Amino acid sequence: MQVFSTVEDFRKARTGFADLGFVPTMGFLHEGHLSLVRRAKAENGAVAVSIFVNPTQFGPTEDLSSYPRDLERDLELLREAGADLVFTPDVDVLYPQGFVTKIDVAGVAAEMEGRSRPGHFSGVATVVTKLFNIVQPQHAYFGQKDAQQCAVVQRFVRDLDIPVRIVVCETSREEDGLARSSRNVRLSAEDRLRAPALYRALTKAAEAFQAGERRTSVLEQIMSEELHAGGIDVVDYATVVSPDTFLRPDILSEKGLALLAVKCSGVRLIDNMLL
Amino acid sequence: MQVFSTVEDFRKARTGFADLGFVPTMGFLHEGHLSLVRRAKAENGAVAVSIFVNPTQFGPTEDLSSYPRDLERDLELLREAGADLVFTPDVDVLYPQGFVTKIDVAGVAAEMEGRSRPGHFSGVATVVTKLFNIVQPQHAYFGQKDAQQCAVVQRFVRDLDIPVRIVVCETSREEDGLARSSRNVRLSAEDRLRAPALYRALTKAAEAFQAGERRTSVLEQIMSEELHAGGIDVVDYATVVSPDTFLRPDILSEKGLALLAVKCSGVRLIDNMLL
Repeated sequence: MQVFSTVEDFRKARTGFADLGFVPTMGFLHEGHLSLVRRAKAENGAVAVSIFVNPTQFGPTEDLSSYPRDLERDLELLREAGADLVFTPDVDVLYPQGFVTKIDVAGVAAEMEGRSRPGHFSGVATVVTKLFNIVQPQHAYFGQKDAQQCAVVQRFVRDLDIPVRIVVCETSREEDGLARSSRNVRLSAEDRLRAPALYRALTKAAEAFQAGERRTSVLEQIMSEELHAGGIDVVDYATVVSPDTFLRPDILSEKGLALLAVKCSGVRLIDNMLL
Repeated sequence: MQVFSTVEDFRKARTGFADLGFVPTMGFLHEGHLSLVRRAKAENGAVAVSIFVNPTQFGPTEDLSSYPRDLERDLELLREAGADLVFTPDVDVLYPQGFVTKIDVAGVAAEMEGRSRPGHFSGVATVVTKLFNIVQPQHAYFGQKDAQQCAVVQRFVRDLDIPVRIVVCETSREEDGLARSSRNVRLSAEDRLRAPALYRALTKAAEAFQAGERRTSVLEQIMSEELHAGGIDVVDYATVVSPDTFLRPDILSEKGLALLAVKCSGVRLIDNMLL
């Protein structure tokens, strides 16, 4: 496994590989990331991983400084998972003095995370485009846990004709259903016990949908009640949208996507489930 | 020479070439474009040209509908100039239903053309990025006539780590100094006689700079007087900036870039000269 922190060094090493899968991460890796790395390796022969906590996708009051980091442990995990190339740039490598370009996505990026975190998806779109241009993979792997991020990436990749195929992989969960996230480590012991309420709420909505419920407001009510019963009181949104447009119809047709964002111990948790 | 109007067909044909130079154009080709094509051919072995009048870089009151077009003549000229691949997409090929992404460049894009034509450089940055992703050239060729466009393209290519080298080529001029432009054909006979005043104004500013004049306002005054003496009364800007930043200092240091934008017969003409 080769590790590089400059664009020039990474590019030089990249020429040694034909087909390449790519997993962009913000580090502090967990089983969710590692499953993406193993899948990318299996499907492409070689896999590149980036570790970069991207400041432009954090708002001024968000948890950039407290975002967990452990590069040595990450590299050890990536070695075991079979990574071939790792890119670990510093902030001034990707955003040198004079940097003035940004990519904005409307439509799917407008609501939910886009509304709660102004500038977040512009930061994501800009850094992912940069990473794609540096890594030049054939396929890039993202977790369904960040459902709206997946939709945003698929959208700008299509809009900008970026020659990378996006592969969205199932959310990796703990035994009790909690979606794996680097931020989970910052939950208090009590809130860690409360956090599986997100999964239970999504599951209840999915069961109601299966049983024929199509009214968005009723499905949302089911989720809110389950969250409150589980002791989660700070709910940013608990909503159901069309998975293609991320717009919220009053009545769903054949598909729906249930989306949750809450705060526990001051930690923002998100999760989702396809209905 | 192969001509394609869909992304899929172009991409398939592109795989037949290793090194490729690229000249993006809005068609109605003149000697300026053709000199770029010949240079790209000489430096890369093969050359691709796009012909696309990009609607997103025109403002609502600008000349999108009257922009001159002649595809058959363009293809004939490209054949003679040695083009290998030509990409002639319709608007809905590059902007299909649901398109919602745009690239914004601050800094060098803010003043002059950026101020006079709001949204212009965002349209340019977005379409050029798309074309680079479709054509995937090693080098792309632009004319110095659009000096600020060159600076904007160089800026976002660097900022987004796009793996294309930008080559800026000298402005192609008529015998009397008028910079070649597809829009020149729309000048009245009288205004065609007046139009070389732009070149004379730039030349006078360059001479004054050579003679030691470093005050921006004096150089601008010299240009304005020459334009008015030449019968050009609608001046959008006649200014001098630093070629790196496109900012206007009061006193120039070792380099300067003189920039003009005027209207003749309702046709917007721009030109520039490195001092």
